[in-house]
Amino acid sequence: MTTPVQQLTTLFKIQYPIIQAPMAGGITTPELVAAVSDAGGLGSFGAAYMRPDELRQAIRKVRESTKAPFQVNLFVPDEVDYRPEQHVAALDKLKHLYAGYGVDFAKASTQAKDDFADQVQVLIEEQVPVVSFTFGIPKKDILSKLRKADCVLMGTATCVAEGRALADAKFDAIVAQGYEAGGHRGTFHTTLRETDEIPNVGLFALLPQLVNAVSVPVIASGGIMDGKGIIASLALGAVGCQLGTAFMGCPEAGLTNSWREALYRSSDIETSLTNVFSGRYARGIQNRFMADMDSVKGNLPPFPVLNSLTSPLRSEAKRRDDAAYQSLWAGQAAKLTRRLPARELMKTLVGEAETAVRRATARCAAEVAW
Amino acid sequence: MTTPVQQLTTLFKIQYPIIQAPMAGGITTPELVAAVSDAGGLGSFGAAYMRPDELRQAIRKVRESTKAPFQVNLFVPDEVDYRPEQHVAALDKLKHLYAGYGVDFAKASTQAKDDFADQVQVLIEEQVPVVSFTFGIPKKDILSKLRKADCVLMGTATCVAEGRALADAKFDAIVAQGYEAGGHRGTFHTTLRETDEIPNVGLFALLPQLVNAVSVPVIASGGIMDGKGIIASLALGAVGCQLGTAFMGCPEAGLTNSWREALYRSSDIETSLTNVFSGRYARGIQNRFMADMDSVKGNLPPFPVLNSLTSPLRSEAKRRDDAAYQSLWAGQAAKLTRRLPARELMKTLVGEAETAVRRATARCAAEVAW
Repeated sequence: MTTPVQQLTTLFKIQYPIIQAPMAGGITTPELVAAVSDAGGLGSFGAAYMRPDELRQAIRKVRESTKAPFQVNLFVPDEVDYRPEQHVAALDKLKHLYAGYGVDFAKASTQAKDDFADQVQVLIEEQVPVVSFTFGIPKKDILSKLRKADCVLMGTATCVAEGRALADAKFDAIVAQGYEAGGHRGTFHTTLRETDEIPNVGLFALLPQLVNAVSVPVIASGGIMDGKGIIASLALGAVGCQLGTAFMGCPEAGLTNSWREALYRSSDIETSLTNVFSGRYARGIQNRFMADMDSVKGNLPPFPVLNSLTSPLRSEAKRRDDAAYQSLWAGQAAKLTRRLPARELMKTLVGEAETAVRRATARCAAEVAW
Repeated sequence: MTTPVQQLTTLFKIQYPIIQAPMAGGITTPELVAAVSDAGGLGSFGAAYMRPDELRQAIRKVRESTKAPFQVNLFVPDEVDYRPEQHVAALDKLKHLYAGYGVDFAKASTQAKDDFADQVQVLIEEQVPVVSFTFGIPKKDILSKLRKADCVLMGTATCVAEGRALADAKFDAIVAQGYEAGGHRGTFHTTLRETDEIPNVGLFALLPQLVNAVSVPVIASGGIMDGKGIIASLALGAVGCQLGTAFMGCPEAGLTNSWREALYRSSDIETSLTNVFSGRYARGIQNRFMADMDSVKGNLPPFPVLNSLTSPLRSEAKRRDDAAYQSLWAGQAAKLTRRLPARELMKTLVGEAETAVRRATARCAAEVAW
């Protein structure tokens, strides 16, 4: 008899139910993805902003170092209705910040190139084993093309209703993204997208409710940093878990030193959900850009237009290794991030999880009824 | 050798590390408290709004049905600076809502009686075994009086900094209140109280960071509804857990049918943190009062003045069993609330927790390395 966890590891053809979260913007390098997958987890590319050719090269680079399966995550594109005249204050503020930082605002494009169809084509041609989506459910023809190419399909839910929609669309697995999670909220539920009231359900509440609502395997994410968190999420009904911030401490992860140091330094209350970087809500460590944009956060250009508009400023901040104007995505437990190479982190997580189970076993034996 | 969980059950002199959360406003009846304590958990009075004599009678009533220990929780009072002229819009809105609901606004008092010293005196005279506080740390003389009376002292933390402050004040145990929790946020960290940016740390992130930061036993709360949640919180380093909403489904709990039905009906995304009922942030199921007060929520009279000002309206809504104008406190997993008498719920929780541990054991044995 296989356990639910084994059903997931069988589905993904991995050894441990540990997924390194896809993190867009260059964090999930081929080195990180290959190391995690080769260590028995599921390494993942956050490929949303990768050009199709760049994505193809990255996939091939992983395959040079491991035969193990891996995941590629894409953002589902949205109809964008951008009218600059409606966001004059925000644009003026940005111009002012660009000028103050010595970056030419003319570099900021409002044209977010939609590579989605080409990205999907690359995934099919390169036979990527696991494909996941954030911000919703792609059109049926895309899903069936991927299924025909034997891709395992995974979606992201921030509330029960989104989980149900993914189950109805026959996704193979669902990531439950708790409120604690760093980076973009995957919210796509239509009635919610139109307000700022995006779902903010903590993982302790989301996980059991989502597991009750769907019969698809549910993977936990948000605030999980170690083996204790892995076992806790399995206890709540997940069949695996996805860790993002935890893997940002790996030297293979592509982030600046200033960002890395901010992770180790930030307390439990120093991250916020903010829409000022991209136009969509995402969790990051509070910094100057968030404070500077606070006055215009109520009326911002939509995603991905704002993401493109803030991109040259953030790139320059990265170049200077200056935390002030980077999007310092991080989960609420960032302080627990460790400085370990990906292989060692995987080994540590597995060891901790096994210890946690053994402790539970010992407790059970020692205390019978507690 | 005693396990950390056994240290807690020894400290509280209880059988199971399960605490029924103190919930103010009449929910925690003597019947509920006695049933939970008699079943081996720690029943608790949310006594913040109880008159000293009423509290004394309630305590005695518990002792008539059980010799088991129980908890009384009080709100630590705050200096209140209330200037009606600064809240004209909010007061006008309230008057309008009172009139529309047929309740005389003149009944609404701005005088919140401060019974704290007298309440503490009752706890000492009645030798209450476990005393806990929300909204901070009482003055030293109060704490030492309670310690001399052999009361075990517990505090509430919504972030690591508050946990450290409680540990420094030599509290015997700390409740980690996750973002998922229903009712009032216990936040008291001074630099935070002055802004609306109260800590909003999900339990998955709060628990391990708080456990790392203090050597005092940490009790988990927020979104825990069943044995799986109990085991998950123990896996994350808690030595016990406190469940509020889960016990609101017990017939012994003192809440209206309309409120009870709202619990069973509400989805994962239907609770919000709101300050419109009391002047302090609390989590409840969204209803008409929250919507009606939305326009004035940015400038409200402080706690407990606003609590008194909204009290007659809420009382009338309770009398009519109308969910629209009650404060429907509930956690983010309210939908998982069960309709079981307190003794049966306790038995169910213990059974589920033992099953969860046994499953973890079986998984460990079956999968060795997963």
